[in-house]
Amino acid sequence: MPELRKDPIIGRWVIIATERAKRPDQFSGQPQEAYVEKPCPFCEGSESHTPPEIYALRPTHTPPNSPGWELRVVPSISPFLEIEGDLDRRGKGLYDMMSGIGAHEIVIETNQHIGNMADLSAEQVSKVITCYIDRMVDLEKDKRFKYVLVFKNYSWIAGGGRVRHSRSQLIATPVNLKRVKEELVGARQYYDYHERCVFCDLIKQELESKDRLILDIDGFIAITPFASRFPFEVWILPKKHSSDFINLEMSMRLDLGRILKKILMKLKKGLNDPPYNYILHTAPFRRPKVGYWKSIENDYHWHIEITPRLTRVAGFEWGTGFYICPLLPEDAAKFLREVDV
Amino acid sequence: MPELRKDPIIGRWVIIATERAKRPDQFSGQPQEAYVEKPCPFCEGSESHTPPEIYALRPTHTPPNSPGWELRVVPSISPFLEIEGDLDRRGKGLYDMMSGIGAHEIVIETNQHIGNMADLSAEQVSKVITCYIDRMVDLEKDKRFKYVLVFKNYSWIAGGGRVRHSRSQLIATPVNLKRVKEELVGARQYYDYHERCVFCDLIKQELESKDRLILDIDGFIAITPFASRFPFEVWILPKKHSSDFINLEMSMRLDLGRILKKILMKLKKGLNDPPYNYILHTAPFRRPKVGYWKSIENDYHWHIEITPRLTRVAGFEWGTGFYICPLLPEDAAKFLREVDV
Repeated sequence: MPELRKDPIIGRWVIIATERAKRPDQFSGQPQEAYVEKPCPFCEGSESHTPPEIYALRPTHTPPNSPGWELRVVPSISPFLEIEGDLDRRGKGLYDMMSGIGAHEIVIETNQHIGNMADLSAEQVSKVITCYIDRMVDLEKDKRFKYVLVFKNYSWIAGGGRVRHSRSQLIATPVNLKRVKEELVGARQYYDYHERCVFCDLIKQELESKDRLILDIDGFIAITPFASRFPFEVWILPKKHSSDFINLEMSMRLDLGRILKKILMKLKKGLNDPPYNYILHTAPFRRPKVGYWKSIENDYHWHIEITPRLTRVAGFEWGTGFYICPLLPEDAAKFLREVDV
Repeated sequence: MPELRKDPIIGRWVIIATERAKRPDQFSGQPQEAYVEKPCPFCEGSESHTPPEIYALRPTHTPPNSPGWELRVVPSISPFLEIEGDLDRRGKGLYDMMSGIGAHEIVIETNQHIGNMADLSAEQVSKVITCYIDRMVDLEKDKRFKYVLVFKNYSWIAGGGRVRHSRSQLIATPVNLKRVKEELVGARQYYDYHERCVFCDLIKQELESKDRLILDIDGFIAITPFASRFPFEVWILPKKHSSDFINLEMSMRLDLGRILKKILMKLKKGLNDPPYNYILHTAPFRRPKVGYWKSIENDYHWHIEITPRLTRVAGFEWGTGFYICPLLPEDAAKFLREVDV
């Protein structure tokens, strides 16, 4: 059983993932693990190579775990967290911990052996978006969970696996994530003073100045953030205020699919198919109506953060939260605007 | 002039390092930049290849920037921040920024071409420690600066340069770092309730349980933290309460040199010379006597955090502050205890 442990000083929860554990003597500093592609268990016809599907987009006449699907969700074969069990919160002197209860699912985004989501159609990307929402709505029913983290690691360097088959991951956690809390607190403080959503103000300013605007299509904008941590970091935000991604109307899902595909294609074409990660930032679903949870509906605004991996990140950047970005976000936006896709 | 920009939501300052900037079309996702060693400008005899020294440990009869030194400090040739100028704090709509004023110095730890600090003598490591303190005391006099970040990137993977010559870096910043503030807030909250330092309690518990204890020598302990983010993460803490690293007595500096060298040697020997980073965590020097700054002397406790780079870190770990560690800290401590150095 994995374990969740809380740092007693800054209150950060960490997963000690014993299921993925190696023995101490299996870690080695040299040489770095090389990338070797494995046979693909995610293509159509290889259904028996994954755990049974949790969700699939397939014609009704095809049985589960058979060919004929467009998109599948399966449990991770090496999950960070386990679905069965009690949270069992406990302390040990100074320290707090609980069992590593949660869900860890893999969204197989296509039945074709396509590596980069940029190469899926906008329609297929919008189906992935609908799948995220469906899975989040389902996971929300489990009272043990507080948050569902949706993210993608594209390619080996960015934490992806040994198979180049486009997929993303969902992790349902029994704790709220540090960064999510920080955003909620920040957005709450801004709202307390201005009585406006900080993200809505930011969108307005970006649309006026256009300095960091990459795309403004349908109901969404894509920008490079003012205080970018990484070169070519991109945020996609809905122009209309909305705190909860799961409330995204059906008609907007194709729009989101379109802008997400376009941005990923611009990164691919302009930057020579870089490794990247994206993370969906949305409101947690279990929230008491107090403190910085008071009115998340008004003050928080969901968005997607995309970070290409183009530079080495020094350890002090993790350790201090102090990032050094070697490119002006305005120059990055201009460059991406001009990449023709 | 580099620029400091503040994220308007979570309040994180970022350096937009235009001095190190590349043009947008110079970034490329494939292939990853390879490591090619350059001729060493840090060895004895190559003094003309670095900017003039700011500090050196050398016999009085040798002139500055000549051979004969044991340790030198020089400004970085590609500084993240610039020493000359005014802070010029300003806003632009929603956004806050200031000029990238600061100091960025390189501590050349030996006149020999030795790559890993583990291979320096304990005496030499203690001289590096004295150098850190001397430079911090000097930088503190500049009223523009709030914090001096002391860190080391060992080897290319960990953000080090193209030369394998043991060195560390100091960055003096006009802002307080996010992680430092979080530690101060956390330590303050614990002190408010318990009227004890959280780090002192932690040291007591670790000395009693011994589960995560690697070394307990002289005035210091080395442990793997309970909520380790990375496999073989190590913290070194002084057993006697002290908030400010710069107050470390001369007699303790050799003790610190000894334990630091020993830990680095255990990592090198046990894990096949891994890339690593370390960061000194100490109290900021300009602190009003209010809020979480109220009594830093009582509630904060300086320490060094060492993080080997043995796993790929996925982008969602940066993006969420939610880390997954594939090794039990107790197993890591046991392994490191048994590495004979």
